[in-house]
Amino acid sequence: MTQFRSSRSEMSLGLFLLGAGHHIAAWRLPEAPPNAAVSFPHYQAIAAEAEAAKFDAIFFADSASVRDFGISPIDRDERSIRLEPLTLLSALAVSTDRIGLIATASTTYNEPYNLARRFASLDLLSGGRAGWNLVTSANAQDGPNFSLEAHPEHGVRYDRAHEFEEVVRGLWHSWEGEDAFPLDKTGGQIFRPEALHPLNHKGAHFAVRGPLSVPPSAQGHPVIIQAGASEAGRDTAARTAEVVFAAHQSFDEAFAFYQDVKRRLAAYGRAPEDLKILPGVSPFIGRTRAEAQASFDELQDLVTPEVGLKLLQPFAGGLDLRDYDLDGPLPDLPVTTNAIGRQKLLVDLARRENLTIRQLYLHIAGARGHWQLIGTASEIAGELEHYFKNGAADGFNIMPPALQRSLGPITELLLPELRRRGLFRKDYTGTTLREHLGLRRPDLPAFPQFAA
Amino acid sequence: MTQFRSSRSEMSLGLFLLGAGHHIAAWRLPEAPPNAAVSFPHYQAIAAEAEAAKFDAIFFADSASVRDFGISPIDRDERSIRLEPLTLLSALAVSTDRIGLIATASTTYNEPYNLARRFASLDLLSGGRAGWNLVTSANAQDGPNFSLEAHPEHGVRYDRAHEFEEVVRGLWHSWEGEDAFPLDKTGGQIFRPEALHPLNHKGAHFAVRGPLSVPPSAQGHPVIIQAGASEAGRDTAARTAEVVFAAHQSFDEAFAFYQDVKRRLAAYGRAPEDLKILPGVSPFIGRTRAEAQASFDELQDLVTPEVGLKLLQPFAGGLDLRDYDLDGPLPDLPVTTNAIGRQKLLVDLARRENLTIRQLYLHIAGARGHWQLIGTASEIAGELEHYFKNGAADGFNIMPPALQRSLGPITELLLPELRRRGLFRKDYTGTTLREHLGLRRPDLPAFPQFAA
Repeated sequence: MTQFRSSRSEMSLGLFLLGAGHHIAAWRLPEAPPNAAVSFPHYQAIAAEAEAAKFDAIFFADSASVRDFGISPIDRDERSIRLEPLTLLSALAVSTDRIGLIATASTTYNEPYNLARRFASLDLLSGGRAGWNLVTSANAQDGPNFSLEAHPEHGVRYDRAHEFEEVVRGLWHSWEGEDAFPLDKTGGQIFRPEALHPLNHKGAHFAVRGPLSVPPSAQGHPVIIQAGASEAGRDTAARTAEVVFAAHQSFDEAFAFYQDVKRRLAAYGRAPEDLKILPGVSPFIGRTRAEAQASFDELQDLVTPEVGLKLLQPFAGGLDLRDYDLDGPLPDLPVTTNAIGRQKLLVDLARRENLTIRQLYLHIAGARGHWQLIGTASEIAGELEHYFKNGAADGFNIMPPALQRSLGPITELLLPELRRRGLFRKDYTGTTLREHLGLRRPDLPAFPQFAA
Repeated sequence: MTQFRSSRSEMSLGLFLLGAGHHIAAWRLPEAPPNAAVSFPHYQAIAAEAEAAKFDAIFFADSASVRDFGISPIDRDERSIRLEPLTLLSALAVSTDRIGLIATASTTYNEPYNLARRFASLDLLSGGRAGWNLVTSANAQDGPNFSLEAHPEHGVRYDRAHEFEEVVRGLWHSWEGEDAFPLDKTGGQIFRPEALHPLNHKGAHFAVRGPLSVPPSAQGHPVIIQAGASEAGRDTAARTAEVVFAAHQSFDEAFAFYQDVKRRLAAYGRAPEDLKILPGVSPFIGRTRAEAQASFDELQDLVTPEVGLKLLQPFAGGLDLRDYDLDGPLPDLPVTTNAIGRQKLLVDLARRENLTIRQLYLHIAGARGHWQLIGTASEIAGELEHYFKNGAADGFNIMPPALQRSLGPITELLLPELRRRGLFRKDYTGTTLREHLGLRRPDLPAFPQFAA
């Protein structure tokens, strides 16, 4: 059987931003701004560093509610407060020039015309740097903020998501023809009328006439990203995604996922390079392994049991883990209807490594079930190279545990080491997110954005 | 009977931005960027000029469809294409420091939780400069982009809008207590749990639990603006708006509207200064009146009949005006279920001034039914002063006919003349939009946005 691996010599690297960092206690470090979760100056400084380091993109997750409101201590988790990601990225578009801008937006609680328009607007004004991380809302607490008693089931959400994506993509393709935009003052014509056509979509969830009022960007339309690990998620990704943010604990898992998803592409008439797979990885880097370990331990010591249990709550399937011995084994969890894929990852991990409840929450305190590496830059670069060269990754979505502490070692130790190995760019060669990622530009006319 | 007039000595001035300008032919002028409608550099340059001139705010209208698609020649109207206003304003928040940022967003085709979150995010990241122009979608063509066969009736839209506003305001008030945000690293607490409460709204249109995940801004929450001129619109404004963008053709109309809306406030326990009324005005300014008239005539000459008729189409109640003699009188129009208030303004104007169809579309080509002034800076300042001092306005929403041509005379001739008369600020005295407008800050804790 064909074995797939990256067709490029250099990997893609995204930087996943989340408040003071991915480690739940990051905001408590002395060097962290305690208001990082909603501080624009904080994100602005980090985005500038990320661009100087030539990352492909910065990325924001999202949640349309205060997570665990009424369930666990929200006042001790900086993730209870956040800025809406598209608003934030639109602002960061102005303080950056080249880096890609990826925002999560849910198909469960939005209208496709609104989202298509907002992402197309960000894409046009940023010069073709936008990406949409398409998710179904996994958080059951979002429902009651949108006039729903019950959060829709996994299957219904995926069905809606599929049609939602079709509509958004269709709206982005409202424009056609090389000479679509004459911008002719003398003749009084902005665009050729035949360049703009309606969508006339009628489906089970949506009826959308179109066309879209935003012209295409320098990269055509925003890059479509997905993150689902479930069977439905993998299939949706193979059909429509251009990037997949994956979550794995081991090379074998990552390899199996990579090969499976790449293999599914052919059925949809797509080539392996039409979809990039970027596993998440949270690196603790030190000049020595001991230094890296000390940095990790300092953060772990700041995790209190109440905050630790809060991390497990979304995957507990309704069970209150406070009723169990923290130093005993994880009980069998009722299957959640929400984050099925993430729950399975977690339970597999606990069983495989025989973790207590405390060990489990400490294990995910840094990267919420994503891959975590503690070591020197050389050790970590070696791991990433292994994945990249052997069919487990096209690059990585880097999840810094604590931004003010981790970003320095990433840009000053890890990236130079990857560059020495010829695995990461020295400078941008393109201007759009698609160019950074090595993705094809869709066949759409570009609006002459900077003509005078 | 009490006569109301502005309680402040200086007027508020908003700058209403729309592509190359409000005159439908503005983009065809030699100095205009033909891509202005969707050009971020264009808007960035104009916003910088507006801030240097100390305007209270810049303002964007919106429409969630390509207007008149399939009805009239969309390729000849730059308003067929546009950027989504909140996306655009989030970007402009970064390239400006002090000026207010007002975006239109519809209550007809959005979810209140999403809008509350986006405006609160813009408000927080801009340091308290956001304003929400709350509208019901008057454009029947928006409906088919949102899975609706028929655009909801005027009454239903107002009813939904009223509840929508209640929910958004309620979500913005999710936070309470002076010391709501300890940001205490040592104790591990971001905010006091009792500072955050759910909304638990249950109404005819929405059920929204809350709370909102975005903390309050420097000005508490965004300023709420409305523009409805109908009976329902006036009442909604008196109940909830902090600013009203009005549309009038004469002092008498403006005076009657101002007095009526200010008088309605008491019934809702509000003081006259809790709501500011800013009529729209489109000034053609010259060093002489002849120069102003020449500038106006040049633009009018660029309006072709097909584009002119397009301007009337939204108010024609379904009648195709191409079937009528352009140089004959306006026929009786079937009442539109959409823009009732604006249709009435237009018909009243045509009847009062005995205009032909051609004269009518030329009349609104510059300002779409808003007040238009052609004259010297001194003449125009005199008019504005008359309105401001005699109970017809708290300030104005300036609608430049052609930005590249009109903004210079506005900032270099008109504003200095207003300053000589003591009617407009020399510099900002506050940092938030509420401070610019002289509006009370709601009783909400401010998040320590810039603490290190």
